Amino acid sequence: MIDLNRRQLLAGAAAAGAATALTSSLSPARAAVPPAGAQAPGFYRYKVGSYECTSINDGVFLRPVDNFVANIPKEQAEAAAEAAYMPKGMVAVPFNPQLINTGSKLVLIDCGNGVSMLEPSKGRAGRTLQNLAAAGVDPKSIDIVLMSHLHPDHTNGIRAADGSMAFPNAEIMVPAKEWEFWMSPENAAKAESNTMMKNYFANVKKVYAGIESKVTRYDWGKEVAPGITSIATPGHTPGHTSFVVASGDSKILVQADVTNIPEFFLRNPDWHVVYDTDPALAQETRHKFYDMAAAEKATVVGFHFAFPSIGHVEKDGSKYRLIPAVWSPVI
Amino acid sequence: MIDLNRRQLLAGAAAAGAATALTSSLSPARAAVPPAGAQAPGFYRYKVGSYECTSINDGVFLRPVDNFVANIPKEQAEAAAEAAYMPKGMVAVPFNPQLINTGSKLVLIDCGNGVSMLEPSKGRAGRTLQNLAAAGVDPKSIDIVLMSHLHPDHTNGIRAADGSMAFPNAEIMVPAKEWEFWMSPENAAKAESNTMMKNYFANVKKVYAGIESKVTRYDWGKEVAPGITSIATPGHTPGHTSFVVASGDSKILVQADVTNIPEFFLRNPDWHVVYDTDPALAQETRHKFYDMAAAEKATVVGFHFAFPSIGHVEKDGSKYRLIPAVWSPVI
Repeated sequence: MIDLNRRQLLAGAAAAGAATALTSSLSPARAAVPPAGAQAPGFYRYKVGSYECTSINDGVFLRPVDNFVANIPKEQAEAAAEAAYMPKGMVAVPFNPQLINTGSKLVLIDCGNGVSMLEPSKGRAGRTLQNLAAAGVDPKSIDIVLMSHLHPDHTNGIRAADGSMAFPNAEIMVPAKEWEFWMSPENAAKAESNTMMKNYFANVKKVYAGIESKVTRYDWGKEVAPGITSIATPGHTPGHTSFVVASGDSKILVQADVTNIPEFFLRNPDWHVVYDTDPALAQETRHKFYDMAAAEKATVVGFHFAFPSIGHVEKDGSKYRLIPAVWSPVI
Repeated sequence: MIDLNRRQLLAGAAAAGAATALTSSLSPARAAVPPAGAQAPGFYRYKVGSYECTSINDGVFLRPVDNFVANIPKEQAEAAAEAAYMPKGMVAVPFNPQLINTGSKLVLIDCGNGVSMLEPSKGRAGRTLQNLAAAGVDPKSIDIVLMSHLHPDHTNGIRAADGSMAFPNAEIMVPAKEWEFWMSPENAAKAESNTMMKNYFANVKKVYAGIESKVTRYDWGKEVAPGITSIATPGHTPGHTSFVVASGDSKILVQADVTNIPEFFLRNPDWHVVYDTDPALAQETRHKFYDMAAAEKATVVGFHFAFPSIGHVEKDGSKYRLIPAVWSPVI
């Protein structure tokens, strides 16, 4: 009864196409419908207690595997990318800021690559403003932009296309340790010999030029906005911060970059993404964070998880695995 | 430096809230932004060669675990649901019809639960028409509704709210074996003692009453629409059909119900969903289909996968695992 085998599926479409008249030839003649040519908007709503949260997709950047993982042979990373069905020799890195409406404050946690990335990425990254617009959110209504750390994909979206403030009424909150690190001329001088770090220092300087007074520095272990508590998760950068968002009996962990893409660094928590400032500390943080998240069965939101970027983490021996949340049609 | 432990995260938000003044108190006073209260539209576009495809989310139905898996103890199924972070004692079953624009024909593969399910499901299911509208698709422009089989969640969407045809210009294509099975008075009589089967027979009779002449019956292994080939995958129902959609060098497998939810039946391919007509045959089909899909590294679209319902299947011993596709911001 079953005629299901590799050969049939490989050859099926072509063979059938050659041999079979279309049974649909009796349909009424109508003009063909043109392709839409554009993706659906990238936003997704979920509740945390009484808070309405929105995952905002800034896009997905494709980069060569190359030196993406600093402490393993390139071939091993390429094999992991292939096993995750990424384009040949490439890794796909998603970006997902989170919008939290606490009822009294509208808080944007991280703000993406910025619109200046739209063109060089062929529309793949820098989409936060357009996805906020699709979600019906006026950038002027955002009260706080809460930075997890000062890497470009998290912070450059603070600027609009003309260089003005993308969220003109927002207080900009930055981890105090992070601000201190990137604003130090001594640290910048020490980074001169490392191209990546040098570029990071230059980027922070450029993005924050003239708006230093708009920035509020915050400490770890504090409620930095209503129901949003900063959690020390250093290593990726010296001031890297995650957040607990809590309302009523509900709680989520907004991890930021405790890992980069889960296909690599949850599955292999001892792999080091090339962007880490202190990879050994990042690794230690990662294990502590996920051991806790798995034990607590906590909902984890990851900046670099696939949109809508919400899931749970389970232990798998000394590794971890992400269980993505099922898309809900209602909130 | 790290202060990351279970106690902090459990107690963090509350403790910090009691102890810390909000640093955001300096923000300019503005009216709070009301919650949006509605989910993002559930559609997602992807290309297969020159074809533009759209995954259309009909919703997600919540049902008690109860007898959902016919051949294992209820407790074991409940444990699997809990491990997948489904609501306590429940399973979440997503539904995802696929719209294929071949350039010459607009083909809808399966059509969801129908708008009559919107109210009883509290808006959780029966959303195909509204998500087609969100995607800018006029139901009148659909040329073919291609049924994988005649269970209510796949076929009842053929009717609009007033009972008229939801896709008035569409040819309705049904697997010949499926039509034969459900339209047989002898089979219906035999099913009288089985409530589920009795209801299924009654449903098919009701949904297709008066429109029998609009139905085209198709065979397996044929190109049933441009580039779309029917594949025999019986067991779930006698005429259950999957499809290869092929254009240029690209190809996907639209599996329909080779499994119900992957968290249960890909991970445990020998578990039998209660809805199977011939569970042993469905199990045999499942292994053949996924052994082939894994070997071919084929893109698989599953009606009951989490939206956007696209992924790859990898072997994991005698089991399988779904690797969901990463949401792409561009098509």
